[in-house]
Amino acid sequence: MRVVEVIARKRDGGEVPSGELRELVLGYARGEVPDYQMAAFLMAGYLRGFSTAETEALTAAMLDSGDRLDLSKLSGPTVDKHSTGGVADGTTLVVGPLAAALGMQVLKLSGRGLGHTGGTLDKLESIPGFRVDLSAGELLDQVERVGLAVAAQSADLVPADKAMYALRDVTATVASTALIASSVMSKKLAGGAACILLDVKTGSGAFMKDPAAAGELARTCVELGRAAGRRTAALVTDMDQPLGELVGNAVEVREAVEALRGERPGRFLDLCLALTGHLAALAGVAPDPEEGRKAALRALERGDGLEKLRQFVEAQGGDPRVADDLSLLPQAPVHLDVTVQEAGCLAGVDAEAVGRAAAALGAGRQRKDDPVDPAVAVELSVKLGDEVGAGDRIGQVLARDEAAAEAAARDLAAALRWSREPCRAPELIHEVVSPDT
Amino acid sequence: MRVVEVIARKRDGGEVPSGELRELVLGYARGEVPDYQMAAFLMAGYLRGFSTAETEALTAAMLDSGDRLDLSKLSGPTVDKHSTGGVADGTTLVVGPLAAALGMQVLKLSGRGLGHTGGTLDKLESIPGFRVDLSAGELLDQVERVGLAVAAQSADLVPADKAMYALRDVTATVASTALIASSVMSKKLAGGAACILLDVKTGSGAFMKDPAAAGELARTCVELGRAAGRRTAALVTDMDQPLGELVGNAVEVREAVEALRGERPGRFLDLCLALTGHLAALAGVAPDPEEGRKAALRALERGDGLEKLRQFVEAQGGDPRVADDLSLLPQAPVHLDVTVQEAGCLAGVDAEAVGRAAAALGAGRQRKDDPVDPAVAVELSVKLGDEVGAGDRIGQVLARDEAAAEAAARDLAAALRWSREPCRAPELIHEVVSPDT
Repeated sequence: MRVVEVIARKRDGGEVPSGELRELVLGYARGEVPDYQMAAFLMAGYLRGFSTAETEALTAAMLDSGDRLDLSKLSGPTVDKHSTGGVADGTTLVVGPLAAALGMQVLKLSGRGLGHTGGTLDKLESIPGFRVDLSAGELLDQVERVGLAVAAQSADLVPADKAMYALRDVTATVASTALIASSVMSKKLAGGAACILLDVKTGSGAFMKDPAAAGELARTCVELGRAAGRRTAALVTDMDQPLGELVGNAVEVREAVEALRGERPGRFLDLCLALTGHLAALAGVAPDPEEGRKAALRALERGDGLEKLRQFVEAQGGDPRVADDLSLLPQAPVHLDVTVQEAGCLAGVDAEAVGRAAAALGAGRQRKDDPVDPAVAVELSVKLGDEVGAGDRIGQVLARDEAAAEAAARDLAAALRWSREPCRAPELIHEVVSPDT
Repeated sequence: MRVVEVIARKRDGGEVPSGELRELVLGYARGEVPDYQMAAFLMAGYLRGFSTAETEALTAAMLDSGDRLDLSKLSGPTVDKHSTGGVADGTTLVVGPLAAALGMQVLKLSGRGLGHTGGTLDKLESIPGFRVDLSAGELLDQVERVGLAVAAQSADLVPADKAMYALRDVTATVASTALIASSVMSKKLAGGAACILLDVKTGSGAFMKDPAAAGELARTCVELGRAAGRRTAALVTDMDQPLGELVGNAVEVREAVEALRGERPGRFLDLCLALTGHLAALAGVAPDPEEGRKAALRALERGDGLEKLRQFVEAQGGDPRVADDLSLLPQAPVHLDVTVQEAGCLAGVDAEAVGRAAAALGAGRQRKDDPVDPAVAVELSVKLGDEVGAGDRIGQVLARDEAAAEAAARDLAAALRWSREPCRAPELIHEVVSPDT
């Protein structure tokens, strides 16, 4: 195979045979194909697109570039849930415990936050003592024992994806459906779970701004999962505003705990219950997603989800008392309320800007190795379609100092668009791509 | 400037501001922009295209990445001629002497052959003693004294082009009109001549297979030359068959000498005269290209061209007696005639395959640092539209050994398509792009 001919074929809109794609990806992972050739190939693919067969071949090659977890010793059913990334999107912290409470084995390899979106690992590490660097043995043991484990993805899993993602990030080739799908699915397949549920975000705070593109990504991922023999489904869900009310790290643990306590009804909890219901249907512990959702709600009401959270936190070295005493989480010294001057209806939110405001406070990172501040946060307590009166409090900033708090409050205000006319809340779930579609 | 944003803008079909293109190209030449980002940018540009303003900015930045020759001390008029590359395309060896004989100062910085096309430097170096590594001082002095000099392009001229061309070669981004035009014209502009004539080849032996694409390249180059204040014209000429009859190195010197002696009428000489005529019109030594052509023919008939060739060869250390005794050129030991079995009309030639057949004998190189064999060659003495009888000799192979000769003869035969119907010769000159277009 001559790499330059593979690039030329993709450049001209042709289909690259699976064997050549495999050689390209594995050669790249081994360092034999140089960055510049992969960069040219990725840009050609970004602009020309990839066929289903090509996307499957890319995914399979990335999967085969490294190790995979062997879950065959687990009693099962094993499940994994993945969000494509959003703002105030801490569903794992609620869905994981609820799914485990329903008898599923939830095994999640996760990443850290970058840019405007938070990372599950960063949020969990705000719990005193919590550790995410589990060995494969610890991970499997905990899943069998507790039903839930969340760990940092090891470098040995899909190294080709790791290298390709880093390259895409600096060559403007991230937002390709096929490349995103193969990146996501190669990691999920390597994680080994028999059932995979994808939460594909769309809207102002998502990488996919457009619901149609998000739907295409969802279908592509489900198809890849099916081709690999996994029970896979996807929801396309709203990210035209932060999902929860709190954007940060410790605060998202707080919101999850409150949701599991039944103290935080709303869109965040609604989505967590829906996701758990879909997982239950995939795993066969409920006859369909709606029955699964009801079972999840019952588990929550019985306190089983909260109890599972305690077990999970304790198993990973964290202080389980956070489930009962939220003051054990890191606290920011400065609290600044945000109010509105005029009455109106919340008609638009730049959710990405809200995420960036929190990141600017220190809750997120610009570079891979930056530390995050667990305590700082932005709260937005109104949702699209809500009516407010002049002077109403609509949120709060938790910051290290006054100047940072005021800057974040200005950023938050600038991210909101108000209407004098009544306005509507967007649908929470745009589309469901079921495994039998 | 963030490079990834420049890439994204081009990827999405937007126009990149001149200042940012300049920073990109100069940053790349300085080694600050990595290969992989330039590769992604080049592929995006290949597929999205570049505007006129972008192409001008790329050209100007490449020009400014290095030194340029200062011809202001020359008495002039200074001219340069460039072919985009073809098979049996040794026009420089005839046009140079004729133009010098007409009083022009011809200064040509040239490259070596690669792949199926020959390089002027390789051809000249088949003359015993000939050297091409002239310093800038030697070059200018010789042009002033003799009227003609051909030298290897120094690494200090347009280093950005050198780096970008090498990258394009391995990332399938060569065949972009804007990138070819900016590469060609940045080198021509750095060479300093006031008048620039481009011979844009089109057909089976050219990089541009399609005359319309070649025409677009010609117009783009002429526009770039005009924007830089040079008198620039371009001819789009036929490369659907080798231009001359001899494909190799020493044999192309032989064909040029024979043409200058008036012993080789035909398409090769016709194009040389036309090119010299256009140069004469650009330089103001003839009122128009047709009068220039007639003047070139008179110079040839008087023997002034041949005399100028002798002076030129001698000035660069070569043996000037080659102009009178072709046996001084390197000779291959094996001569194998090629004949046809059936009568017919030559209806098609894969000129690139003919070039590759000569290269396989050793006349060309696959890699930049390969040596070339000056003596080996392929001769194809019939032209498209020619009728032949069964058993007629249509050419010859000059080789190092019988096996290589037979392989080349097979390759040559396979590159030809014969018809039982009468067929036609293609136009020699498809299009003229004049400086006043």
